[in-house]
Amino acid sequence: MKLLVVGSVAFDAIETPFGKTDKILGGAATYITLASSVLKVESGIVSIVGGDFPQSDLDMLTNRGVNIEGIEIVKDGKTFFWSGKYHNDLNSRDTLVTEVNVLEHFDPKIPESMQDAEILLLGNLHPGVQLSVLEKMNNRPKLVILDTMNFWMDSAMDILLQMIAKTDVISINDEEARQLSGEYSLVKAAKKIHELGPKFVIIKKGEHGALLFHDGKIFAIPALPLEDVFDPTGAGDTFAGGFAAYLAKKENFSFETMKSALIVGSAMASFTVEKFGTEKLQEVTEAEIIARIKNFKDLTTFEVEV
Amino acid sequence: MKLLVVGSVAFDAIETPFGKTDKILGGAATYITLASSVLKVESGIVSIVGGDFPQSDLDMLTNRGVNIEGIEIVKDGKTFFWSGKYHNDLNSRDTLVTEVNVLEHFDPKIPESMQDAEILLLGNLHPGVQLSVLEKMNNRPKLVILDTMNFWMDSAMDILLQMIAKTDVISINDEEARQLSGEYSLVKAAKKIHELGPKFVIIKKGEHGALLFHDGKIFAIPALPLEDVFDPTGAGDTFAGGFAAYLAKKENFSFETMKSALIVGSAMASFTVEKFGTEKLQEVTEAEIIARIKNFKDLTTFEVEV
Repeated sequence: MKLLVVGSVAFDAIETPFGKTDKILGGAATYITLASSVLKVESGIVSIVGGDFPQSDLDMLTNRGVNIEGIEIVKDGKTFFWSGKYHNDLNSRDTLVTEVNVLEHFDPKIPESMQDAEILLLGNLHPGVQLSVLEKMNNRPKLVILDTMNFWMDSAMDILLQMIAKTDVISINDEEARQLSGEYSLVKAAKKIHELGPKFVIIKKGEHGALLFHDGKIFAIPALPLEDVFDPTGAGDTFAGGFAAYLAKKENFSFETMKSALIVGSAMASFTVEKFGTEKLQEVTEAEIIARIKNFKDLTTFEVEV
Repeated sequence: MKLLVVGSVAFDAIETPFGKTDKILGGAATYITLASSVLKVESGIVSIVGGDFPQSDLDMLTNRGVNIEGIEIVKDGKTFFWSGKYHNDLNSRDTLVTEVNVLEHFDPKIPESMQDAEILLLGNLHPGVQLSVLEKMNNRPKLVILDTMNFWMDSAMDILLQMIAKTDVISINDEEARQLSGEYSLVKAAKKIHELGPKFVIIKKGEHGALLFHDGKIFAIPALPLEDVFDPTGAGDTFAGGFAAYLAKKENFSFETMKSALIVGSAMASFTVEKFGTEKLQEVTEAEIIARIKNFKDLTTFEVEV
């Protein structure tokens, strides 16, 4: 199946306790499609960049099989730029700079070559933009996956709720799930979010793993305990990308397949955090992913005979 | 195998968003042995109570097969009393009252009938008291399990380190593991704690589950997502009790058995939080535990074919 990804393609400048980078390649759509390319899934990006965006990065994406026809280039514009500094525990960070630039007037255009995508992954953007993408598809994709964040709950809840109503799978973190539902218990929160539309609710808990809720069933995975996290940037997007790509590869949206997809997403994200930006994700092989999935299996498998 | 438990037998007065109690039965050793009695494991308590402690509670323990010969009764003393109020999220609480009472001069006495216990579980107490118990055993038990907390790291680190050096399995929470090791990464923290003595390190993460580290291997379990937590008091002790009792029942201390024991402890703890104090733990059946272990299996089992 084809995967269409709408989201930022950007520059990041990152500082962690282990070092810092100049402007490097970033953006949700970048991480998502790089993750899907590891699984050799056909994907395409709808996004916007400035004239300052390097042709070499576009070529890299193309060479990995990512369809970039939907990336609009504004010659006299500047690419979205984010700069942040992580605290010592790497669980929190300060944003130093956010330059929205060309993303401010982003009017997504879906190339004809991606109109037949069966899975649409809407990366974290203004929910009005996300909604417009869905409206521009000739046919509703078979599966709509939505990533969003608390910022839009604070600033654009009405339109976010319209977007959520048209979503099959929503992916948010635990605090966002609590904010969206008004419930502290994540089980109750997921129930309320189901009522807003999504049949599948993914609640991400960072270093504590993730939960998947569907039809009264729950699946829980820990995060792979890592000796060192080098740079957490892009981990959530890589997770979403690995998740969506696995579904595309299996051409199946059952709960059982989604459980596996959650593991694949987590395995991929565990690589992303090992180096700065997309560096590790660009070099990781399918064999390494498979080995890490086996680590997950070892980490969680047990037998009890009382 | 016989399980010897050293820890508080106490009164608690608890307030949660769902209600409050008068003085009810509490204490680490109480929860631990009640948990072990569900698995019909022979256990005994070494502790101290005042003349105000009800005979009916002692009889209840005896009727459940708990050896109470090691509970010293100070006729003119008062039983340890703790009172606390949980916040709305039930993840944090304020201590309202702590009356140490007879526990202040607790000099543990091990009854002859428990000298042959193969597993010793040292509940959270002053590490000097924990150490004295080990010295009073005629033979070193085959397995020493230690529960402790940040309070002793702040106030009695030297003697705590002596105690940890004689421990086989240590059970602490994530913040305590970080404090004890000076490492933020839990993988690194566990490595340093191994070097202090314990071959097995359990790191508890509350609503996020638990990790078990041994010989370079890691096992992770989520907590069972619950719709409602009614009263978290005693959850950690119940977990430790279920864990130790399973090992006693299996007469085996392998990593594989410890993994299963972690699940059993978590399953038991998930019952404790459903009612006030020990109420639910006193009525839960082995069949209910088995059913909940199956819930854990469903919650965590997956297959991935990339």
